[in-house]
Amino acid sequence: MQAEKKIKEWLGVNRPKGIRFLQRLVQEGSTRGNESKAQAIIIEKCRKLGLSLDIWEIGEDVLLKHPVFCTDRTDFTGNPNVVGILKGTGGGRSILLNGHIDVVPEGDRKDWQHDPFSGLLEDGKLYGRGSTDMKGGTVSLILAMEAIIQSGIQLKGDVIFQSVIEEESGGAGTLAAVLRGYTADGAIIPEPTNMKLFPKQQGSMWFRITVKGRSAHGGTRYEGINAIEKAMLVITKLQELEEKRNMRITEPLYQNTPIPVPINIGKIYSGEWPSSVPDLAIIEGRIGVAPNEEMKDVEKELENCLLELAQTDAWLSKSLPKVEWFGGRWLPGNLDSNHPLMETLTTCFEKVKDTRPIIEASPWGTDGGILSRVGDTPVVVFGPGVTEVAHDANEYISINDVFEAAEIIALAILDWCEIDS
Amino acid sequence: MQAEKKIKEWLGVNRPKGIRFLQRLVQEGSTRGNESKAQAIIIEKCRKLGLSLDIWEIGEDVLLKHPVFCTDRTDFTGNPNVVGILKGTGGGRSILLNGHIDVVPEGDRKDWQHDPFSGLLEDGKLYGRGSTDMKGGTVSLILAMEAIIQSGIQLKGDVIFQSVIEEESGGAGTLAAVLRGYTADGAIIPEPTNMKLFPKQQGSMWFRITVKGRSAHGGTRYEGINAIEKAMLVITKLQELEEKRNMRITEPLYQNTPIPVPINIGKIYSGEWPSSVPDLAIIEGRIGVAPNEEMKDVEKELENCLLELAQTDAWLSKSLPKVEWFGGRWLPGNLDSNHPLMETLTTCFEKVKDTRPIIEASPWGTDGGILSRVGDTPVVVFGPGVTEVAHDANEYISINDVFEAAEIIALAILDWCEIDS
Repeated sequence: MQAEKKIKEWLGVNRPKGIRFLQRLVQEGSTRGNESKAQAIIIEKCRKLGLSLDIWEIGEDVLLKHPVFCTDRTDFTGNPNVVGILKGTGGGRSILLNGHIDVVPEGDRKDWQHDPFSGLLEDGKLYGRGSTDMKGGTVSLILAMEAIIQSGIQLKGDVIFQSVIEEESGGAGTLAAVLRGYTADGAIIPEPTNMKLFPKQQGSMWFRITVKGRSAHGGTRYEGINAIEKAMLVITKLQELEEKRNMRITEPLYQNTPIPVPINIGKIYSGEWPSSVPDLAIIEGRIGVAPNEEMKDVEKELENCLLELAQTDAWLSKSLPKVEWFGGRWLPGNLDSNHPLMETLTTCFEKVKDTRPIIEASPWGTDGGILSRVGDTPVVVFGPGVTEVAHDANEYISINDVFEAAEIIALAILDWCEIDS
Repeated sequence: MQAEKKIKEWLGVNRPKGIRFLQRLVQEGSTRGNESKAQAIIIEKCRKLGLSLDIWEIGEDVLLKHPVFCTDRTDFTGNPNVVGILKGTGGGRSILLNGHIDVVPEGDRKDWQHDPFSGLLEDGKLYGRGSTDMKGGTVSLILAMEAIIQSGIQLKGDVIFQSVIEEESGGAGTLAAVLRGYTADGAIIPEPTNMKLFPKQQGSMWFRITVKGRSAHGGTRYEGINAIEKAMLVITKLQELEEKRNMRITEPLYQNTPIPVPINIGKIYSGEWPSSVPDLAIIEGRIGVAPNEEMKDVEKELENCLLELAQTDAWLSKSLPKVEWFGGRWLPGNLDSNHPLMETLTTCFEKVKDTRPIIEASPWGTDGGILSRVGDTPVVVFGPGVTEVAHDANEYISINDVFEAAEIIALAILDWCEIDS
């Protein structure tokens, strides 16, 4: 009780310093390939906190050869992963605190009211690319550790803090950390959940479907086979598949989600000339993977549904649509809602917020899939920040949420790792 | 009878020279903007034949402001239109012989067995870009005139030979000639009809339809509106429109044509990212225009059908698909099958080929639409060359067809313009 009071007090007193730290982090834009300066700020902070540091450039053989490894980036020089460990005295459960430092590109600067990397503070919100996704969350983690350390609290279990690269591109940073041996009895990832608890996360993967046709002059279009028309058959079939896949989802956490595992048709490109029949259409999209599903099974199901379609169409039966699984891949997360880590977080949430947390399944993948499936570490995704503004212009985070999340996480660490008194 | 015999003899004796002339013309590739050298060969020939020449660079004000004018080309310098007139003694009907000198690009050279501008002769075929579309036809016109002149035959009516630019891009060359005053009592355009007679030609125009959606993350795709799905509604509606438009066609010349006036969906482009809901889709295509239709009415009909669709869809009713009429536009041609020019050509065809000609409506537009609708000149499209190889790799023309077409056209000129004996 004494410890929890100290945490609250420390966070109150150090609020201005905490805000300035988040500002500095947002101002150091860290899009893919440019993570080094933001990581330097993290490293400096870990040093001050006396954490035992592990800083390394990923790209090790065991990573590159891992079946889950998925990126088109080949050069990681100068942009390291950072791990800082607060060693416990022993006997407590360990906790892993994972944040990613990479941010998505700022997009069209004209859509931003202020500079995308301003870190501008207005009406209790801090603006800038990466504020919500997820430097605000990372700062909650750091504030939680800082509050514990500076309050003189000694933990039994280890706290493993990670600031990883490559989350936005498929999770190579977290995978590298797992393969380096960083696993724990539980993990918190403060992605923007809007203060909800997500024990389960939708996974996803990208697909590309190539549909062939036969070209002809538009004036005699009946002499050709229009690839766009055939692509429309494919899309309609995928819509049916989406319906079928979602019909069988019984997970109660999805009860308020209109489509728990959507199939998104994100792109279609076909044709070169208005008056020619196009002979090639390319569809790209994303298929959601349910928490309890295996990626391979989902791949197979989509491929089989296209084979089924091909049997109903004379042209497609001879010219099968080709499926490629390219680009992004995010493993789903599937923690039981009654897992002790959920209990811990729920209790601490109630202490701080004086209300029950909302528990849901996330509609997007996080590094939690890799941590839990490859690293065998139970993961809850919980953080400040609002999904809706992530990846968008004028991204912001509520300062209040950053500090409340920090307090909830700090209390959860105390409960999970135990105080050595 | 004597005259017809002379024509046949002259064409027999001069066959090797005629072939070499066609070779030279094909070897002088004349894609858009590069017509000058091929036109120089035409000019040289017209001079030798003693035709009265009119050579001019198009781009005159009256052309640029004409409602039918349609091109994105702004510079015509150095690439003139050529008209050569064989003046009659008076009292006969005039005839206009129209060929275009521009050829479409050769496409991927790897698809060609020989150089695209080789003019190679093999098994009675002459190969190269433009051989079929339509330098072979133009050579038939020139051979017809040459045979008449060199046989010492004097005509009553004028023969107006034209070698125009810009046919492939919407007919600005022929339009310029019409506006300069070149019209006649009848016209022959030897586009590749495979020796069929086309008194009617399908017109066409290009459209671009912009369909809006609302973007969202693919994992919560139900929060967005997928522009691709809405574009599919538009395409389906256009398929219905095509069916409706073709149901009402009763023209007997179309009885063997599966779809007399097709709507071709030539392009679709939508989306930037597989896991985002696309907020914009662009469809481009070509709508066929029946011989008896007005372009404006067809535009209106397509626009109305999209308004009709919009009424059935909550999103589209607020966010109407936008239609643009851009790029290519070819007026249809609509000569009565019993027109005297058809009778002349049919009779001459039978004399030379000893069989009835096949009479059809063309599935594509030609400069004939402009000649007949703007120039009030009755047009029959008839020529050597095969539609199937036009615009394709390994384009060729049958030498025999070039000479038979020349003979039929020469006899038709004698009949139409009358011999002054």
